[in-house]
Amino acid sequence: MSEQNNQKKPKSGIQPTREENYPTWYQEVIKAADLAESSPVRGCMVIKPWGMALWENIRDELDKRFKETGHVNAYFPLLIPVSYLEKEATHVDGFAKECAVITHHRLEDDGEGGLKPGGKLEEPLVIRPTSETIIGEMYSKWVQSYRDLPILINQWANVVRWEMRTRLFLRTTEFLWQEGHTVHATKEEAIEETEKMHQVYQDFAHDFMAIPVIGGEKTPDERFPGAVQTHTIEAMMQDRKALQAGTSHFLGQNFAKASNIEFTDEDGELKTAWTTSWGVSTRLIGGLIMTHSDDDGLVLPPKIAPQHVMICPMIKKNADSSELIDYCNKIKADLEKQSYNNVPVRVDVDTRAIKGGGKLWKYIKQGVPICIEIGNRDIKNDSVFVCYRDKGPGAKASLSRQEFIDSTVSELERIQTTLLSRATEHRDQHSKEISSLEEFQEYFKKDPKAGFAYCYFDIAHDIESLCKKLKVSARCIPESTKADRGPCIFGGKNPGHKVIFAKSY
Amino acid sequence: MSEQNNQKKPKSGIQPTREENYPTWYQEVIKAADLAESSPVRGCMVIKPWGMALWENIRDELDKRFKETGHVNAYFPLLIPVSYLEKEATHVDGFAKECAVITHHRLEDDGEGGLKPGGKLEEPLVIRPTSETIIGEMYSKWVQSYRDLPILINQWANVVRWEMRTRLFLRTTEFLWQEGHTVHATKEEAIEETEKMHQVYQDFAHDFMAIPVIGGEKTPDERFPGAVQTHTIEAMMQDRKALQAGTSHFLGQNFAKASNIEFTDEDGELKTAWTTSWGVSTRLIGGLIMTHSDDDGLVLPPKIAPQHVMICPMIKKNADSSELIDYCNKIKADLEKQSYNNVPVRVDVDTRAIKGGGKLWKYIKQGVPICIEIGNRDIKNDSVFVCYRDKGPGAKASLSRQEFIDSTVSELERIQTTLLSRATEHRDQHSKEISSLEEFQEYFKKDPKAGFAYCYFDIAHDIESLCKKLKVSARCIPESTKADRGPCIFGGKNPGHKVIFAKSY
Repeated sequence: MSEQNNQKKPKSGIQPTREENYPTWYQEVIKAADLAESSPVRGCMVIKPWGMALWENIRDELDKRFKETGHVNAYFPLLIPVSYLEKEATHVDGFAKECAVITHHRLEDDGEGGLKPGGKLEEPLVIRPTSETIIGEMYSKWVQSYRDLPILINQWANVVRWEMRTRLFLRTTEFLWQEGHTVHATKEEAIEETEKMHQVYQDFAHDFMAIPVIGGEKTPDERFPGAVQTHTIEAMMQDRKALQAGTSHFLGQNFAKASNIEFTDEDGELKTAWTTSWGVSTRLIGGLIMTHSDDDGLVLPPKIAPQHVMICPMIKKNADSSELIDYCNKIKADLEKQSYNNVPVRVDVDTRAIKGGGKLWKYIKQGVPICIEIGNRDIKNDSVFVCYRDKGPGAKASLSRQEFIDSTVSELERIQTTLLSRATEHRDQHSKEISSLEEFQEYFKKDPKAGFAYCYFDIAHDIESLCKKLKVSARCIPESTKADRGPCIFGGKNPGHKVIFAKSY
Repeated sequence: MSEQNNQKKPKSGIQPTREENYPTWYQEVIKAADLAESSPVRGCMVIKPWGMALWENIRDELDKRFKETGHVNAYFPLLIPVSYLEKEATHVDGFAKECAVITHHRLEDDGEGGLKPGGKLEEPLVIRPTSETIIGEMYSKWVQSYRDLPILINQWANVVRWEMRTRLFLRTTEFLWQEGHTVHATKEEAIEETEKMHQVYQDFAHDFMAIPVIGGEKTPDERFPGAVQTHTIEAMMQDRKALQAGTSHFLGQNFAKASNIEFTDEDGELKTAWTTSWGVSTRLIGGLIMTHSDDDGLVLPPKIAPQHVMICPMIKKNADSSELIDYCNKIKADLEKQSYNNVPVRVDVDTRAIKGGGKLWKYIKQGVPICIEIGNRDIKNDSVFVCYRDKGPGAKASLSRQEFIDSTVSELERIQTTLLSRATEHRDQHSKEISSLEEFQEYFKKDPKAGFAYCYFDIAHDIESLCKKLKVSARCIPESTKADRGPCIFGGKNPGHKVIFAKSY
């Protein structure tokens, strides 16, 4: 194996680099990988094919895990009567300010050659910002007896929240997500369900997306509007900000009472049910980008990559390329016979005639885990020229064809593992135990990027203004130190929980 | 094989029967199979898990066929500015009357303890009734050169059309669908694409859903608003009405001009592109129900059935059922080792303790192709008690366990084939060549159910009032007799095409 490390650092594929301007780098990575773009509709994005393929892979993998844990899919209406939203007081407070409101059901001639809203609705409807209220209404009809429980339903859907400041994938007016909504006979079962799905999210993020999330519980102020308990998975981005990547809510009886979900129990008594809800969204793709990508563009963990291997023959216009294409197709066929993560290796050949290294660069920027370039010399040598995405384009290497084919699956696994451990290392390097208010302020004031601050916090104590001033928030009470208590560094009277604070998306 | 045919006709699973009241029978089949129900939101349905599983199977199969024909998925905004809709005159005429209009982006206190719309939008938005205009807007940015073509994109999405009279699956305010939108450099390529996707729909309906659709072209009045040519697949329901099950539109340059989709061709000239669109929706499930179901409920072609085989052990409450369940699980395991239509046989065991035949009946009503009942006597005899859904519950039979296991896959294939040929026979029996206006009027007036009338029709001739009077419409010009011409039976001057007329959904 002959290495061809360039001595001087090559110009990066993405301008600016992460160091130079992180937010712009993020936009540029999305653009270079052709994942999505803004639409002319305020705050709404268009998810382009490569981005959509990522979401489809997320959906398929999660859907499998939901079904393995006994859930089924259903579909509920997009539109919700305003009166339903009003049923749960905290809930409506949380969402009223960002609802798309439908007031009319047709367009009419405005007398000036244009159209105006016509057919006013008796009661306005909102586009679902989340579906607890409309699903609760249906559940109240479906649940009569303890025999009807549990209900374990998930929905894949679009939702709309009228956000004032939007950013591709991370915060958009419309986004795609899944929302699980379950009903149980007892509090214990509902809590067990919430924790189970929280664990499904954690495992999924680790195993599939190579994102080392921290599982924990939200402090009261950060809970979902209407929830009794909110579990979250929090990830650290490369700029050391936290990203909430998925939440699971134990809703107690709040929504069951609001929607009247009652059942006759085995003992003949009429009881109020207990509900949960849990969701992840296209935001995960934002988290994926900011966890793994580098200054050359997107980096994809192989398990989520729409293509594992891209083969780029160096085809010249108007030249006979049949031998070159045959050689590539043979490699493709040999790879497709093998499996990675229980699916055949996903490999494609780009047969376009394009000058220079543009073809290879395209797939590097798109995050394909393994790209190979094949020229006529490679055919003579029975070799391939390989670029493993995690090593960067500077580390291209020539390998014998057979050696390459035999090592591809193990290399994919190596890349998957490498990305997870790199991200874990980054997170741990930028996490700090903080033991005083002074140190806390110092940490977030001095270091513009800071990271995760672990400290004791009396969750009943009000530190809102401090958090606002420092632009930080309590991310979660991590499960791993759930029982840990100590004196609150903010001066709260009660024993403090160990809480992670960070700047966040 | 011992047959246990009951002598007297058993009471049907669905009341009323098809003969007694077809529309109510349809509603009752949906209810008994637990496919969907109306929601409190006007015209919007809730798709329940069993109905959703059907849609997921439709989606997965079609998605595979779309990808095999070179298409990729993307996702475009739910909301469309009114000004976009106005760009194509015929198009806006077709959809303006049934648009959900968003005029505000938050809810405000109405001063009486309730909420009212707040934050008026400068320009109202509509929820997409279809996406030609918003997708066209994006395509106009993406297409610059002939090298950017073709664009072959599909989207799985929800759409809203404010229908005044709705019916579960067949016509709902919100429905799920896919919409393919493609752009081509030449007219020929766009026509080829339209015909290709039309063929994909035909093959899918035949092979997967066992619906013998007739492929053809719509007459001018029945085209999609803005299309130059609309291809359709038309199915005959059991009440002999036609159902339009999927359409593929050659849009010419109408939308490309409206959205300004232009490109520089190889010859350096700036040209306007050619576009197509094509879609099927949850309406297909309505067609599925009305094609195959009988007076005992839903009947599912095995390829689309969420479960191929349901095993119902006759479990008694408070009795040891372990031997019974073991026996069933062994059958399940033996079946799952086998494949039908390239997937492992889908089989489940219902271990609930329920009295009488209720458990078996549940799955018969849900259309499971093969249901078996297992009691203690069957274990002794090493047998199973089988009900093949296409033969009806009266034709239950006892089979040796091994014989059953060995024959399951071929029985599934037999059922799939039987359902298609039954539906084909029904359609052909109720199709008639009509050669005069008098005969035409007779046909649709006398027989309340009529069927498909084939006759020559000058498509430029206006017969709107006649059609209205008879409550029939031109369904399509079938491909099989595309070139056939004859004198128009309605008195049109030009030679008539061979056209199918029918009452329809």
